[in-house]
Amino acid sequence: MREKVYLKFEEMPKVYYNVLADLPFELDPPLDPETNKPISPEKLLAIFPEPLLEQEVSKERFIPIPEPVLKEYAVYRPTPLVRATFLEEYLRTRTKIYYKYEGVSPTGSHKVNTAIAQAYYNKIAGTKTLVTETGAGQWGSALSYAGQKFGLDVRIFMVKVSYQQKPFRKILMNLFGGDVQPSPSNLTQIGRQFSEDHPGTLGIAISEAIHTVLNEKDAKYSLGSVLNHVLLHQTIIGLEMKKQLEIIGIKPDIIVACHGGGSNFGGSALPFIPDVLSGKNIKIVAVEPESCPSLTKGEYRYDFGDTAGLTPLMKMYTLGKDFVPPAIHAGGLRYHGASPIVSKLYHERLIDAASVTQEEVFEAGKLFAKLEGIVPAPESAHAIAYVIKEAKKGDKESIVFTLSGHGYFDLNAYINQ
Amino acid sequence: MREKVYLKFEEMPKVYYNVLADLPFELDPPLDPETNKPISPEKLLAIFPEPLLEQEVSKERFIPIPEPVLKEYAVYRPTPLVRATFLEEYLRTRTKIYYKYEGVSPTGSHKVNTAIAQAYYNKIAGTKTLVTETGAGQWGSALSYAGQKFGLDVRIFMVKVSYQQKPFRKILMNLFGGDVQPSPSNLTQIGRQFSEDHPGTLGIAISEAIHTVLNEKDAKYSLGSVLNHVLLHQTIIGLEMKKQLEIIGIKPDIIVACHGGGSNFGGSALPFIPDVLSGKNIKIVAVEPESCPSLTKGEYRYDFGDTAGLTPLMKMYTLGKDFVPPAIHAGGLRYHGASPIVSKLYHERLIDAASVTQEEVFEAGKLFAKLEGIVPAPESAHAIAYVIKEAKKGDKESIVFTLSGHGYFDLNAYINQ
Repeated sequence: MREKVYLKFEEMPKVYYNVLADLPFELDPPLDPETNKPISPEKLLAIFPEPLLEQEVSKERFIPIPEPVLKEYAVYRPTPLVRATFLEEYLRTRTKIYYKYEGVSPTGSHKVNTAIAQAYYNKIAGTKTLVTETGAGQWGSALSYAGQKFGLDVRIFMVKVSYQQKPFRKILMNLFGGDVQPSPSNLTQIGRQFSEDHPGTLGIAISEAIHTVLNEKDAKYSLGSVLNHVLLHQTIIGLEMKKQLEIIGIKPDIIVACHGGGSNFGGSALPFIPDVLSGKNIKIVAVEPESCPSLTKGEYRYDFGDTAGLTPLMKMYTLGKDFVPPAIHAGGLRYHGASPIVSKLYHERLIDAASVTQEEVFEAGKLFAKLEGIVPAPESAHAIAYVIKEAKKGDKESIVFTLSGHGYFDLNAYINQ
Repeated sequence: MREKVYLKFEEMPKVYYNVLADLPFELDPPLDPETNKPISPEKLLAIFPEPLLEQEVSKERFIPIPEPVLKEYAVYRPTPLVRATFLEEYLRTRTKIYYKYEGVSPTGSHKVNTAIAQAYYNKIAGTKTLVTETGAGQWGSALSYAGQKFGLDVRIFMVKVSYQQKPFRKILMNLFGGDVQPSPSNLTQIGRQFSEDHPGTLGIAISEAIHTVLNEKDAKYSLGSVLNHVLLHQTIIGLEMKKQLEIIGIKPDIIVACHGGGSNFGGSALPFIPDVLSGKNIKIVAVEPESCPSLTKGEYRYDFGDTAGLTPLMKMYTLGKDFVPPAIHAGGLRYHGASPIVSKLYHERLIDAASVTQEEVFEAGKLFAKLEGIVPAPESAHAIAYVIKEAKKGDKESIVFTLSGHGYFDLNAYINQ
């Protein structure tokens, strides 16, 4: 009656896919801001554990998922691929629309995929405390959940505007044992430079988290997006999706995912890059907010990942590290930059990008909720807004998008936009 | 690795199970409070549509689920049966624990099962507006969702204490087009009798809803629990559960579900009553809050379903229609009575009942969230609290409970208890 493709756990891919093994070009290396030369591994070891740094530069095509990580994935994975029959019917389109639903995870978004992996690799490397930042709160709650699973303390700097807009997210992090501070905070030198009523940015929160890690023993920094190893862990989404599409014999014309730092988009899209490289007729689209258009309006150059300039310089599409995005409700997409992998793919025209307005986003989100019975996270609703426009044209056989999370913690966004 | 039992849609039972066909005794009929005699169908037709009244008294064992209802069930059904391996491990128990997860529904609880059916039957009977009450908001949001699916207006009286504690529930109802008023309201004569700071009760909210229906054309009343036809629709839970248990060859020693008005409990338990009647070794337990103990401390007698005395008199376990339960966080369990079917089964000792404290409930809820990756609704956490106690004994082969909903709209309860 309705196509829902579940995989058995045994059918779930047991490896991550590393796109760096297949790209016909090299990524530009991260630079040490002090020397403007490629950064030394030693410097990075101060903030990241060794196993994750190895993954960051690995060229292995497939990286096995460790058993303890698989055990935790089994809580919610494999996630379903669902045909949006009610949306199709409403749009009167002949295009088949499928969505990969990551909202079934313990904290309601795809972020748990890398949180579990990062917690595990930190645990075996001897880390005691994980420090991070969070925008909408999806990453912070995912890391809190994963941290307690592996016995790690988790401390989170949460972008102040989201901290105020999303009290439930804070409760969820606390429930899983996470310690949450609004950023800019008065806990760090960096935070204290900003006025009390500054809405905060991911860039500032990252600075505060890294500053904390550099001044504390056995603490490591954990990032929920942007970096190669984060996208690597998220490829479990695209790998499952590929398998599910094969089972029902669908060769999608377009793969769509929302894009902030790149973890959901990369995780969904990277496993399809070999298809693009081999000339298959498939278009991959990153959808971002019109008000924070890193890919569609940013410059491709070296920039810092944070505001204070504590991170290495990364070659990426950026709106500039001092860009303060408007207080839109898709907090997870309020980042000035884009992941180096996604940036390079976009620069080489292997993927496309598009932007949508906040109005389109919430209209799409409400429609989807009423028809398909899932209130999407505002982030994910960006993908839906784009998909609706494409499906209305009716000239495609099938479109697949990732519904990266549910919006049950973001409901006030639906009335306050 | 982890047992999760998904049914294909084709495997989902396409009928409801009517326990009245199998009971070796008759239910005591609802009485007209004016005559103290069985109430005439005509009187009930003023508030309920004919097809639902037919189901209320039917003796057919299986009642086919209409095609348009099946189509809507396909949005989220069949729901998974999951083995709580992490909980078992934590408790170091040899008892296998399974849960039937109804939180995957569009509004996060089992209530959608009957909401869709009621909206459909009202639609074909010509109803334009559905009026109802809601405690925790689960029922109100379920009916709002179902109403818009079938083009019906939905108006909801929400128990005031929940209205204040659960703002997200109101937003969700509004998102699906439902109109929500805190009860006691000043919209009805009945509501105006109470002071402004009265916390409200389901009994009062029901009175306000029925009063509204009696004074409006083409409006019908819709109840989310208690009545025979509501429990009938919910048997889809137990029927699926039975099939899933058969697939994995599990014969449960105990079936557990939380109990408020009886819809989740009845839906889960009734399909197992034939097993009890045929002498199989199976125990069925309804778990209720110690502070609102309709079954464990109530009297078995005729009572009104509401506070103002607008409903027929029903034979049930009751704490008295004027009972004002404390403002516990499991709003869905704050009802003075129990469904006539569940009451009769309990009176005849075909099922058991137990109560748990609010402290036990939230401790169980937090533990479950951390281990199993789902924050349970406070209502559902009652079942978990009981299951944990039973599993610790370690003398049972297997226990199955219904996780009737998630607690993502109830997170403040987890810090405010």
